[in-house]
Amino acid sequence: MPEEVPLTGAGGSRQRPVVSLLTDFGSSEPFVGLVKARILGCCPDAAIVDLTHELSPFAIEAAAFWIARAFSYFPAGSVHVCVVDPGVGTARRILLVEHAGQYFLAPDNGLLTDIADGEGATVRAVDLRVPERWGLGPPSATFHGRDLFAPLAGRLADGSIGPEELGRPVQDWLRLDRLPVEISPSRIQGRILFADRFGNLFSNIELVSPVHSTEWQVYAGGRAVPWVRTYGNGTPGSLVALENAFGVLEIACVHGSAALALGSGPGTQVELRRLEAPA
Amino acid sequence: MPEEVPLTGAGGSRQRPVVSLLTDFGSSEPFVGLVKARILGCCPDAAIVDLTHELSPFAIEAAAFWIARAFSYFPAGSVHVCVVDPGVGTARRILLVEHAGQYFLAPDNGLLTDIADGEGATVRAVDLRVPERWGLGPPSATFHGRDLFAPLAGRLADGSIGPEELGRPVQDWLRLDRLPVEISPSRIQGRILFADRFGNLFSNIELVSPVHSTEWQVYAGGRAVPWVRTYGNGTPGSLVALENAFGVLEIACVHGSAALALGSGPGTQVELRRLEAPA
Amino acid sequence: MPEEVPLTGAGGSRQRPVVSLLTDFGSSEPFVGLVKARILGCCPDAAIVDLTHELSPFAIEAAAFWIARAFSYFPAGSVHVCVVDPGVGTARRILLVEHAGQYFLAPDNGLLTDIADGEGATVRAVDLRVPERWGLGPPSATFHGRDLFAPLAGRLADGSIGPEELGRPVQDWLRLDRLPVEISPSRIQGRILFADRFGNLFSNIELVSPVHSTEWQVYAGGRAVPWVRTYGNGTPGSLVALENAFGVLEIACVHGSAALALGSGPGTQVELRRLEAPA
Repeated sequence: MPEEVPLTGAGGSRQRPVVSLLTDFGSSEPFVGLVKARILGCCPDAAIVDLTHELSPFAIEAAAFWIARAFSYFPAGSVHVCVVDPGVGTARRILLVEHAGQYFLAPDNGLLTDIADGEGATVRAVDLRVPERWGLGPPSATFHGRDLFAPLAGRLADGSIGPEELGRPVQDWLRLDRLPVEISPSRIQGRILFADRFGNLFSNIELVSPVHSTEWQVYAGGRAVPWVRTYGNGTPGSLVALENAFGVLEIACVHGSAALALGSGPGTQVELRRLEAPA
Repeated sequence: MPEEVPLTGAGGSRQRPVVSLLTDFGSSEPFVGLVKARILGCCPDAAIVDLTHELSPFAIEAAAFWIARAFSYFPAGSVHVCVVDPGVGTARRILLVEHAGQYFLAPDNGLLTDIADGEGATVRAVDLRVPERWGLGPPSATFHGRDLFAPLAGRLADGSIGPEELGRPVQDWLRLDRLPVEISPSRIQGRILFADRFGNLFSNIELVSPVHSTEWQVYAGGRAVPWVRTYGNGTPGSLVALENAFGVLEIACVHGSAALALGSGPGTQVELRRLEAPA
Repeated sequence: MPEEVPLTGAGGSRQRPVVSLLTDFGSSEPFVGLVKARILGCCPDAAIVDLTHELSPFAIEAAAFWIARAFSYFPAGSVHVCVVDPGVGTARRILLVEHAGQYFLAPDNGLLTDIADGEGATVRAVDLRVPERWGLGPPSATFHGRDLFAPLAGRLADGSIGPEELGRPVQDWLRLDRLPVEISPSRIQGRILFADRFGNLFSNIELVSPVHSTEWQVYAGGRAVPWVRTYGNGTPGSLVALENAFGVLEIACVHGSAALALGSGPGTQVELRRLEAPA
């Protein structure tokens, strides 16, 4: 992940609390709108940013992927509300994590694994009786986004409550089970996690250091794929491999859809094989 | 509908006018963006909240369902713009309703039935010549969302015009024809209205008082369905019935889609049958 | 295009910088959210308006169509960010155009043709080393929306940088190749550009002066189609032709989808034939 220096308005415009939303609520019903109404009720000045609401229902791993790669672009003090929550209304807890000067709210189901594992992170289990004390009435059993997450986020963003008032630190939060990446000196083997709207295939292989095309050959679904720096560098219609803007190995198709061109999607094997040094 | 006490920012952030939008405009063209541009032109400080723009084209009943169940979560003084408008540009009127300290704008086609029937509601027919006096030029014949609803909402939200300046009270507004719910002491019979993005099936049966699973048995499409409190309470893949977060009887599928599991959608019969008291 | 007099809040609410976004990023990943995070980092007070993010991947012509027809509804000083960018990361330039008191940022690929051709427009090629000087680190090769367009737009909107600091005026920007419209005294012949979410078919024929139905007959896909003023004027299910709210000839279907009723979409021939004067 790149180190980011969030910019601050030099033109003198005042700071505003930023709240981001990442859910599987979709956009065909007003679920997200009701979350926003409640946040604005608590924090009228909030700038609310949709990360996405089109995660597949119950796609905890995709939510975990994105929040870990998105937060560093937000201003300090932002509050991130991540609700992919198949266990809504059951005894599952709600976590509040402080990390890198930002706040994260999510169900305790693994979604915040990377955040909670971050350096200096504090993980709290929210005392769910707190919002009721704000005069809100008991939460519904099925829509905690509106009834709990939204007022919690709004009050945090507004500064009218501090994290320490919301719950005690805990250590026993749930960690995500992930698809494994196998690494040996000559081979790195992973899988496609998902296709984005362009048909670009995101793998689970993180490129922590620059990969030189003279040293490693990429294979996707068994086919050799050449390295490029960006989408425009290749013959239209051809498959290419690149380090994408989120630091992961991506299989793309120049001016096309790699998901269509490769004929496969999530789960497909992706490999890096070390090339023999020339004799 | 729950009684709501909207929260107000205790952290000192100033109030902002809130405008909500509920339309069938979709998101593939910039129709909604143009409505927002016009609202911000009138009311630069507005916080604009999308309820949804993905209503099926001309789905007046769904719009009526959602606005009636959404508004109470918004701060006092909010302006709600509801545009599902197959009669745009014809002689149909535009209504402005004041109810419960909030404002509602919609075509006079039944969309605001529940709001206009609300206690203490005032219904006005907007004088459509008013926006032209603001220097906007005549409205197009096909996009009143941009040309009339947006400036009306923006000016109301901004406080630069009062509702009484926009039109006279009327009594003869259009009421919605609804799917009937048949109620007898031993049986309540309704239908599925729509499936949400999770495949949860919303019925037209409102649960005004708690229903005890020991007293009533639910049937959906002829199949007996057990009551649960929330989605996580049941075997994955099984159909369940619950009171959802909007006060209606919902048929859901634990960690799945009830629309797929039941193999049917809108129009499907849903029944509550009173159980015999044990002898 | 109509001449617009943007309204200004008479109720005393302060001005806010407006930034519009028009992209092919979709909504299934947080691409747009990251652009917004970065804009708010530079310009905390910005009101960000989504025009649409659902343009077909690489649909430069549709983007060009919409930005030219959308901007006049925005307040003075708005910044429009248009990113349909198959050449991201290659040597293609980023343009900043000033026109009619507004700012436009886009790749130099034809997207801003109508804007840059507008009266009094100034076209600059952005010096891409400028954002790095703001402490942002080098841009990724594949996501200039987040890494370049967003901070550029945020700083412009915030007023912390002026257009003249961002690059020098250029004359050699790329013009769009368009579908031709053939015009003769007796016939105007064009094509369907796209169907909107209602199935309304937008043609590439601009109606610069009112067309009288007694003088011209419309044909779409070879079928005669009657003129109407608005959608409600016709038999439900019938095809109609009208001047739409964006000044172009549109084929619609009363309470239905013209794309379905006509059985064809983009590319379909549309004609206006002059009627013989009655003898």
